[in-house]
Amino acid sequence: MKKQLIPVLAGLLAGVLVATLFFAEFTTYGPYSTAGVNSAAEKVYVPLGEHDDYYLIASGGHSGQLYVYGIPSMRRIRTVPVFTPDPATGYGFNQKTKEMLGGYTWGDFHHPALSLTEGEYDGKWLFATDVANNRIAVLDLKTFMVKDMLKVPNTGGPHCSAFVTENTEYIFLPTRFSVPFGHEYASLDDYEKKFKGVMSAVTFDEETQKLELAYQVALPPYSYDVADTGKGISADWAVITTYNTELATTDLEINASQFDRDYLVLFNWRELEKKIEQGEYDLIDGIKVIDPLKHKGGIYLVPAAKSPHGVDVTPDGKYFISSGKLAPLLTVFSFEKAFEAIEKEKFVDEKFGIPVLDYESVMVREVNPENALGPLHTTFDDQGYAYSSMFISSEVIKWNYETGEVVDRVDVHYSPGHLVAAEGDTKSPKGEWLVSLNKMAKDNFLSVGPSHPESMQLIDISGDKMEVVLTVPVDPEPHYAQIISADKINPIHVFEKDEGRPNSVWRQEDARIERKGNEVHVYGIAMRSKYIFDANAKRKDVIEVEEGDRVFIHLTNIDLDQDITHGLGISDYDLTMEIQPGETVTLEFTADKAGTYPLYCTNFCSALHQEMKGYLLVKPKK
Amino acid sequence: MKKQLIPVLAGLLAGVLVATLFFAEFTTYGPYSTAGVNSAAEKVYVPLGEHDDYYLIASGGHSGQLYVYGIPSMRRIRTVPVFTPDPATGYGFNQKTKEMLGGYTWGDFHHPALSLTEGEYDGKWLFATDVANNRIAVLDLKTFMVKDMLKVPNTGGPHCSAFVTENTEYIFLPTRFSVPFGHEYASLDDYEKKFKGVMSAVTFDEETQKLELAYQVALPPYSYDVADTGKGISADWAVITTYNTELATTDLEINASQFDRDYLVLFNWRELEKKIEQGEYDLIDGIKVIDPLKHKGGIYLVPAAKSPHGVDVTPDGKYFISSGKLAPLLTVFSFEKAFEAIEKEKFVDEKFGIPVLDYESVMVREVNPENALGPLHTTFDDQGYAYSSMFISSEVIKWNYETGEVVDRVDVHYSPGHLVAAEGDTKSPKGEWLVSLNKMAKDNFLSVGPSHPESMQLIDISGDKMEVVLTVPVDPEPHYAQIISADKINPIHVFEKDEGRPNSVWRQEDARIERKGNEVHVYGIAMRSKYIFDANAKRKDVIEVEEGDRVFIHLTNIDLDQDITHGLGISDYDLTMEIQPGETVTLEFTADKAGTYPLYCTNFCSALHQEMKGYLLVKPKK
Repeated sequence: MKKQLIPVLAGLLAGVLVATLFFAEFTTYGPYSTAGVNSAAEKVYVPLGEHDDYYLIASGGHSGQLYVYGIPSMRRIRTVPVFTPDPATGYGFNQKTKEMLGGYTWGDFHHPALSLTEGEYDGKWLFATDVANNRIAVLDLKTFMVKDMLKVPNTGGPHCSAFVTENTEYIFLPTRFSVPFGHEYASLDDYEKKFKGVMSAVTFDEETQKLELAYQVALPPYSYDVADTGKGISADWAVITTYNTELATTDLEINASQFDRDYLVLFNWRELEKKIEQGEYDLIDGIKVIDPLKHKGGIYLVPAAKSPHGVDVTPDGKYFISSGKLAPLLTVFSFEKAFEAIEKEKFVDEKFGIPVLDYESVMVREVNPENALGPLHTTFDDQGYAYSSMFISSEVIKWNYETGEVVDRVDVHYSPGHLVAAEGDTKSPKGEWLVSLNKMAKDNFLSVGPSHPESMQLIDISGDKMEVVLTVPVDPEPHYAQIISADKINPIHVFEKDEGRPNSVWRQEDARIERKGNEVHVYGIAMRSKYIFDANAKRKDVIEVEEGDRVFIHLTNIDLDQDITHGLGISDYDLTMEIQPGETVTLEFTADKAGTYPLYCTNFCSALHQEMKGYLLVKPKK
Repeated sequence: MKKQLIPVLAGLLAGVLVATLFFAEFTTYGPYSTAGVNSAAEKVYVPLGEHDDYYLIASGGHSGQLYVYGIPSMRRIRTVPVFTPDPATGYGFNQKTKEMLGGYTWGDFHHPALSLTEGEYDGKWLFATDVANNRIAVLDLKTFMVKDMLKVPNTGGPHCSAFVTENTEYIFLPTRFSVPFGHEYASLDDYEKKFKGVMSAVTFDEETQKLELAYQVALPPYSYDVADTGKGISADWAVITTYNTELATTDLEINASQFDRDYLVLFNWRELEKKIEQGEYDLIDGIKVIDPLKHKGGIYLVPAAKSPHGVDVTPDGKYFISSGKLAPLLTVFSFEKAFEAIEKEKFVDEKFGIPVLDYESVMVREVNPENALGPLHTTFDDQGYAYSSMFISSEVIKWNYETGEVVDRVDVHYSPGHLVAAEGDTKSPKGEWLVSLNKMAKDNFLSVGPSHPESMQLIDISGDKMEVVLTVPVDPEPHYAQIISADKINPIHVFEKDEGRPNSVWRQEDARIERKGNEVHVYGIAMRSKYIFDANAKRKDVIEVEEGDRVFIHLTNIDLDQDITHGLGISDYDLTMEIQPGETVTLEFTADKAGTYPLYCTNFCSALHQEMKGYLLVKPKK
């Protein structure tokens, strides 16, 4: 090497070093982009022309609706109506969905559950339960529309549901609060005798697209909180947390927090199915009911630390982890140990006809991270780690469920309830992302007054250390969510043109208005940019009826193009409907108010959208 | 300088240069961060601990609700209920808001309008109008809650409202569709004679917090689309666009698109106010009505190109710009020229008692950007530029309204309706950000089936070139939005403890249940983590009534901490309420179903939230 090159090279090296340090410094602490900010901003940004990698399917709590978000951008893609009427889509206003809602004007949507095939999300169906008015609904993920809804009797809020079995054989809905059968009036002095903690087993038939109540189980009058189903070796089993095993009937804050241990209910649904097949049940009001006092077997109690909230089965199906809400304790239980204890009938007690297993004979390990308070829920990644939310200490704890070792902790803001990792409750979690569903937002966002949003935080779990990368507000109140790979869901954009569909009209000349007694049926068309209600009338876009008529407006949207939605709102009549491309929808109402009422397209559909209108004329009774 | 230092310094310089180029290259075109993405991602990212700079106040269209977003993050902070019941907040379920909604279950919220002081947003009130069921509402921005709602008669959808005058003296609500007075039944053959395009002048009293209908004007039976109020020299004036001056009564797509020019209605509200003071009106059903056929003056028509959609007054108050929806034309009109023409009575025609001004005598300039189709709306920055949305060519056009020069264009995705710049409709626009409210999203986002979200795009307008930096989905359907500096809105977090408030209870021992005939009044407390309905009962958290009783549950949330919201849901009774910290709310219902019904707190409020429950016991009639 030539001697004079040495100082040049040394200088070059030093220069590169200085500049590198400068840029590293600037990137990390620069005025416009701190390290966390800069990299986090890039991680969550999805540019126009690209899509998010995952759907986040979140319950909307007492809004009654489903919130669909994209991950990693955490943009709210859509509010999908489920238990509450939604004029933005006409849900609960048109004939079919109004009937489906059964007169209820809200719901408390607690847990979404994606359908499973061999323990993996298959992207076909989504089940939803209503804690307020005791219903279960199923959505078709081809359309994100509710296909069926079922009212569940004898239930005081199916809080710990929906949870589906490995191949969507059953959806189990244990009640949160115990009530007497048929909601019969009873004194709380008779609580132990008359109140039951009913669990419902519901099936869904993909052919008929109908939900059905298969049977119910009369569990003890405890409160049931959250549940999970088994996988692999535990696929025939499910597990539910209980609290208030004290059977308190007032001031549960104190009275249901007395015992150091409550129970997990462990049940084998194959055995329960057998019982039903073999007639081992009572028929109460037409419902098959298994009462463990009379029909023993298949159900066991496992003691667990104090008022446990969540229980979660590990991806390998070997363990179930209980979160002791009022004990700072995560407890790992073994299915294999439980099976052995059951086989050997190692029972220490019996409650309401159900054998109680010995805690020590099922428990594998107690995990008690230092100063971690209020464990609620646990989700999993693809590396054998569990992630648990700590409500009181506002953090997420990453730990190894095979060893109990805590490997990382991160603060969240504030008070996380559930948390969910990508496909974290399936047999094959994806790792990558985790979302913490925080109950309190406090001052995270611009203030909108006393009523606060909740907050969701996206956490990058792809590395050794968890990193909170984005905090977004969310309307009340996501209780649970699931994250599914975007490629598993393939919705349609346009409904098929089906000329045989009842009440549909596809040719403009076929649009007509028919009177049958005091029923008026409009067989009409919505298209860019007009209504055709009656092809032969002087004014094709006018509906004239008589006061008191029962009116049925059947509308078909014949614009078979993506995103060309039409609506129909009737001024001052409190009526609205939405018709997707290729869809036929019926609006049914009584014309109980005489007069002149404009009607118009509610969905901006073309440059002549403002011209898409007509009148409802209601001729007064003489 | 020592000779041997030269090569070292040269090397150092070269090294810095090489590294700088490397980092510059990496930052710009690196595999994980392309130039556009990187800078856009950083521009819109608001890290935890910081807040957005602006509120975006967007109408929620036929959802009936208000959407509040933050800018630049475009995170949806909250859905605020206005015209549709919302179980998530108990809106429309509790006594007060149920009464306020007047039985209507939805609305079509078209235009939000922030209150003005001297032509600037004062951050105090927000007005909202319902195109579906003809209402106006006012929200208090201290709480983001609706304070009052008024039903507007003789109206077929107040589409082109609300728009407020410079000091919030009036909110004007012109109808979209013409109807006969009182919505009286009429044949469309009598359209010209019997139908009226009524405009309502509403006032809001800050003291009483009440809206009032001051008077109405019987305008011609055109359709009225959008409006704006004057500023500065034009502060006493307002302007409205019309279409269907053809007076078509069917197939408006064709029949209302015949004339090359429709009208702008220009009116002086000070003069109309004077008319009312001087008794120049008719009293129809108790409403003061000015009919221009009888009471001339103060109202003028200006011809404008074809079926104009938006009309916008420039920040300096000198011009009004009309967007000719069906003509590819933005027309700049001068208020000063209009005033002169009016003074000189340069009228070319008269329609329904209203003088028509000569187009040329008011028009300043026609702007026709090449290939730009479907101009709908215009907003403004702080540099004298106008930004116009082009629905058909899907773009935003930046132009100088003093010269007509088009200086920039940017594509948006797709079909923008309104657009809004930061404080762009005030006297002092901020520049900085613009949001395009796009009617179509097509395949911008992960698909949720046939029913698509709309799309909003955030555009950086701080430089010479517009830059689309973020695209977000939005529920149907923001028609208009306003952007207000975050520091102008200062909401409260907790309601004041007011011991004199009717039905409130602040001490646990004061909680009680009182019977008055068949009315049962519960004066109760919600607190972490229990209900106290009756301090002296065996079970303080149980309400027992008789079948058929009228029940009033008055609940006060005595937790005076930010974000500690309690709720009350009653299982199977379709009832819910929410009580903010320090608030007293009443739920009123008839106990028409005997039985045992759990009640529970709907809002996660503490680690013992699940224990915050009780029962409603309804004793059957004998």
